[in-house]
Amino acid sequence: MQGTPPPQPATAYPPTGRTVPTRSPERASYDRELVHAILDEGYVCHLGFVRDGAPVVLPTLYARVGERLYVHGSTGSRPLRAAGRAGAGLPVCLTVTHVDGLVLARSAFHHSINYRSVVVHGLAHDVTDPGEKRRALDALVDHVVPGRTADSRPANKKELAATAVIRLDLEEVSAKLRTGGVNDEPEDLALPHWAGVVPLRKGHDAPLADPGLAPGTALPSYLAAL
Amino acid sequence: MQGTPPPQPATAYPPTGRTVPTRSPERASYDRELVHAILDEGYVCHLGFVRDGAPVVLPTLYARVGERLYVHGSTGSRPLRAAGRAGAGLPVCLTVTHVDGLVLARSAFHHSINYRSVVVHGLAHDVTDPGEKRRALDALVDHVVPGRTADSRPANKKELAATAVIRLDLEEVSAKLRTGGVNDEPEDLALPHWAGVVPLRKGHDAPLADPGLAPGTALPSYLAAL
Repeated sequence: MQGTPPPQPATAYPPTGRTVPTRSPERASYDRELVHAILDEGYVCHLGFVRDGAPVVLPTLYARVGERLYVHGSTGSRPLRAAGRAGAGLPVCLTVTHVDGLVLARSAFHHSINYRSVVVHGLAHDVTDPGEKRRALDALVDHVVPGRTADSRPANKKELAATAVIRLDLEEVSAKLRTGGVNDEPEDLALPHWAGVVPLRKGHDAPLADPGLAPGTALPSYLAAL
Repeated sequence: MQGTPPPQPATAYPPTGRTVPTRSPERASYDRELVHAILDEGYVCHLGFVRDGAPVVLPTLYARVGERLYVHGSTGSRPLRAAGRAGAGLPVCLTVTHVDGLVLARSAFHHSINYRSVVVHGLAHDVTDPGEKRRALDALVDHVVPGRTADSRPANKKELAATAVIRLDLEEVSAKLRTGGVNDEPEDLALPHWAGVVPLRKGHDAPLADPGLAPGTALPSYLAAL
């Protein structure tokens, strides 16, 4: 039962004028797996759009499904309404950043941050297909806690109607990273200042149950495993 | 020796058309102390600007000095060059977000995130005064680790010339927060799904010293206290 394998996306996003940085090009990456990993690790993106000629940057939940990102919100929210009105799509920039460490150099100039970020440029489109919209909403819940969609009451008609979803395809994408230690000037190495990296840690504390849980409701395994 | 007290800024930023949200206005705040606290807790902001009519959102270090924010970068970086060229200032939106918890409701629809964010709209100006520029750079280092500027080699002329600093005044500013527990519909309370909040934790791991520290260089007290 062999057949033609499904088409595989290239392993890297093609660089464009917008995704090649003017500074520190050695920190840029277009690797698809790396981009996906950075996106999947985040909870909140920063979504930029233009309103009345000025930039607006808002934090919002997002989820990735293959090569598409989804953002949701109230049908009354301004960027989502604007995407609905924009027939050709609303120009957006969606950025996800993880701060991994503080880099303390001997010189003030070489202080830095270890980070991993992804910047996506493109046109956001209103999702109107009911099936795609429901899959996107499921992905948004599962992005917060994997497995959670199956253990919650699905959205009803009224809730679906009150929710707008926009889609942004992963086409014009780059990652940018700084990793490793300090980069001091050779002539500064003998200075008496401590230098090194302070790693930042992320984690969860114990889940706090709602006081009104139905009797006998246990902490689900997907949360105990966090 | 009583005199006229120094002028105090109002305790709240005046709301504007851009800083009053269309959704969940009860989550918005204009309280100056709250805005300062959210800004001072972050390491990286997301800076939005418009290039060729499209939005660009980049993560970058920042620091607050009173009612001013500073962002720095290479003199070759695109937003900083644009701010230098824009005589009247470059329209930007600077956003800082902390993700505090995952809110798991019984219904998919009421899943949410506890967060605190600050959004600043305004015009970014190139900092040309040498004294202000040096104070801004000191603040950027001290924002990463308080007390660090005094324990590092200050920027020399060449480094100062290679660094651009832009200033954004805190005038059109709002905070937005979600705190607390789940907001399920009354008819969902008896459902058998676990509901509650998963608090997210931030912290530091032990500092990793550069292998080439000058002999006898101890971990400074401001790092041991982190």
